[in-house]
Amino acid sequence: MRKFINDPVDFVDEMLDGILLAHPGQLACAGNNVRCLIKAGQLQKGKVGLATGGGSGHLPVFLGYVGEGMLDGCSVGGVFQSPSADNMFEVTKAINSGAGVLYIYGNYGGDCMNFEMAAEMADMEDIRIEHVIVTDDVASAPKGKEYKRRGVAGLFYVYKIAGACAAEMAPLNEVKRIAEKVCANVRSMGVALSPCTIPEVGKPTFEIEEGGMEIGMGIHGEPGIRKGPLDTADEIVEEMLRPIIEDLPFKSGDEVSILVNSLGATPKEELYIMYRKAYTILKDEGITICHPYIGEYATSMEMAGASITLLRLDDELKKYLAKPAFTPFFEQKQL
Amino acid sequence: MRKFINDPVDFVDEMLDGILLAHPGQLACAGNNVRCLIKAGQLQKGKVGLATGGGSGHLPVFLGYVGEGMLDGCSVGGVFQSPSADNMFEVTKAINSGAGVLYIYGNYGGDCMNFEMAAEMADMEDIRIEHVIVTDDVASAPKGKEYKRRGVAGLFYVYKIAGACAAEMAPLNEVKRIAEKVCANVRSMGVALSPCTIPEVGKPTFEIEEGGMEIGMGIHGEPGIRKGPLDTADEIVEEMLRPIIEDLPFKSGDEVSILVNSLGATPKEELYIMYRKAYTILKDEGITICHPYIGEYATSMEMAGASITLLRLDDELKKYLAKPAFTPFFEQKQL
Repeated sequence: MRKFINDPVDFVDEMLDGILLAHPGQLACAGNNVRCLIKAGQLQKGKVGLATGGGSGHLPVFLGYVGEGMLDGCSVGGVFQSPSADNMFEVTKAINSGAGVLYIYGNYGGDCMNFEMAAEMADMEDIRIEHVIVTDDVASAPKGKEYKRRGVAGLFYVYKIAGACAAEMAPLNEVKRIAEKVCANVRSMGVALSPCTIPEVGKPTFEIEEGGMEIGMGIHGEPGIRKGPLDTADEIVEEMLRPIIEDLPFKSGDEVSILVNSLGATPKEELYIMYRKAYTILKDEGITICHPYIGEYATSMEMAGASITLLRLDDELKKYLAKPAFTPFFEQKQL
Repeated sequence: MRKFINDPVDFVDEMLDGILLAHPGQLACAGNNVRCLIKAGQLQKGKVGLATGGGSGHLPVFLGYVGEGMLDGCSVGGVFQSPSADNMFEVTKAINSGAGVLYIYGNYGGDCMNFEMAAEMADMEDIRIEHVIVTDDVASAPKGKEYKRRGVAGLFYVYKIAGACAAEMAPLNEVKRIAEKVCANVRSMGVALSPCTIPEVGKPTFEIEEGGMEIGMGIHGEPGIRKGPLDTADEIVEEMLRPIIEDLPFKSGDEVSILVNSLGATPKEELYIMYRKAYTILKDEGITICHPYIGEYATSMEMAGASITLLRLDDELKKYLAKPAFTPFFEQKQL
């Protein structure tokens, strides 16, 4: 391992300690539990609460987007493990101000089951809950079976846009509608060039040879759609972007936002080389980029690799995407 | 290599193409040369111009801090190579609005020589130039020989604070004074857990064995002060922070900003584990943290490793640090 850690058993809780010490004005714990993070400060009466949750090892996903204009709370699991339903419920109670809570999470078995259980607990306390499950990874199931797809970096767009909508005091059904609209218009694909190591395991749980790549690999090392020797950046972007474009499909005249995301070890230099090619492909297709995001938005610790996400915009999505946000891991002024 | 690249010869220029395509409202070229980046838009008459420059492979350093409230221009070299004096001069001409230009750069032979030559060219055109050379790396030369030290992540603080000062229309000598004040109060140390690869070389130019580390290594792989097996995160932070504290020295009652910086592959999870320990050490020393920065601020492409930087604050430095900034790679609202 090439990691700065102490006892691997303490990895998640020490990380959370550090995050709370670094951002005391922005984040707090619910129920005195570091695994239940909420936005610091007073609840805004009547605002819909937005909660997410998931395994650790993907910063800024998930907790990094708790803050002004985005999420209200996040339950935190072990590395690549779902948080418990109890912790999800703890967050739910802490962020409910009477207008109900929207759960936004990626489509993983453990998360889906636990958020369902948390919703049942909330129901017993008369807290209204709605769910939006993000399934943006086109590599994880074919068209027509979107419900089987994993949620990856597209989560960022759902958090950003639903968060901006909730900040305008929209009611629960309206925030859910806009979140689902993002899900219907967002598509991603990833590629991995190296594995990553779960601290408690101590060695990679899957392998990618030096000089190799796996197109479509998931952020926990789920198998992709093609393994092979490393192609050029331009060829890889072509291979990732074509299936994304064809899936929705994105068409000439569309306006999109694009997210070129590092899975961890891949530096920004390479992301911009990828963006350069993506820009050309989209331009040739007659697709306009409204606002690009390039950097680390959803990672797998020190995995080398990247993902590309496209979101088709309309006036409504564009308006909310442009709103300011302020979280420990993401800051944007009004675009 | 585990890199997204095309022809390695094109690495820097394709990256710059991508950056310019992604941030057209924020960045532009001087003299139609992608290696001469300047802030987009009209020059502000009478504002001191701030220029930096250096080798590629360190994003966001150097060009990523060109923008509102920070730098006005940056000349870009090949990977780990100084930009040319001609390009530095091109940037100088483009950002001079009559109040002169301050060169802020790290203490590396090629950069120092080329900025001197660029200043001579500027002198022939009656552009006033001052230099501030950043030497924050305590591992690179002993106390008393500060002039021999390398400049590393401490550059960020010089850019931020001098940029905020220049934005208030301070004259050249005043912006230089504040930049030198930052230099006098900022100290850093790094640690590397893996090498990185220059694209045109194709293999690492130095080695660190899996499970090993090198304390004090420079951002181009310059030798550090101790090699050994990987210690725990807490032990490493202790070994980095003690020499930083003793060097200035930072004392009980001091107020500081801290930057915990990833050299590339090291994920945010680990930076927060490091911050947790740094916070405890500083607290025990009676040193207060005013505002922490945690993330990728000065990197070596995909190198695994981290650096810690401390800046001692007074009211003046604190005021400028708190000012808003808006660049493609760094955004901060008023603190």
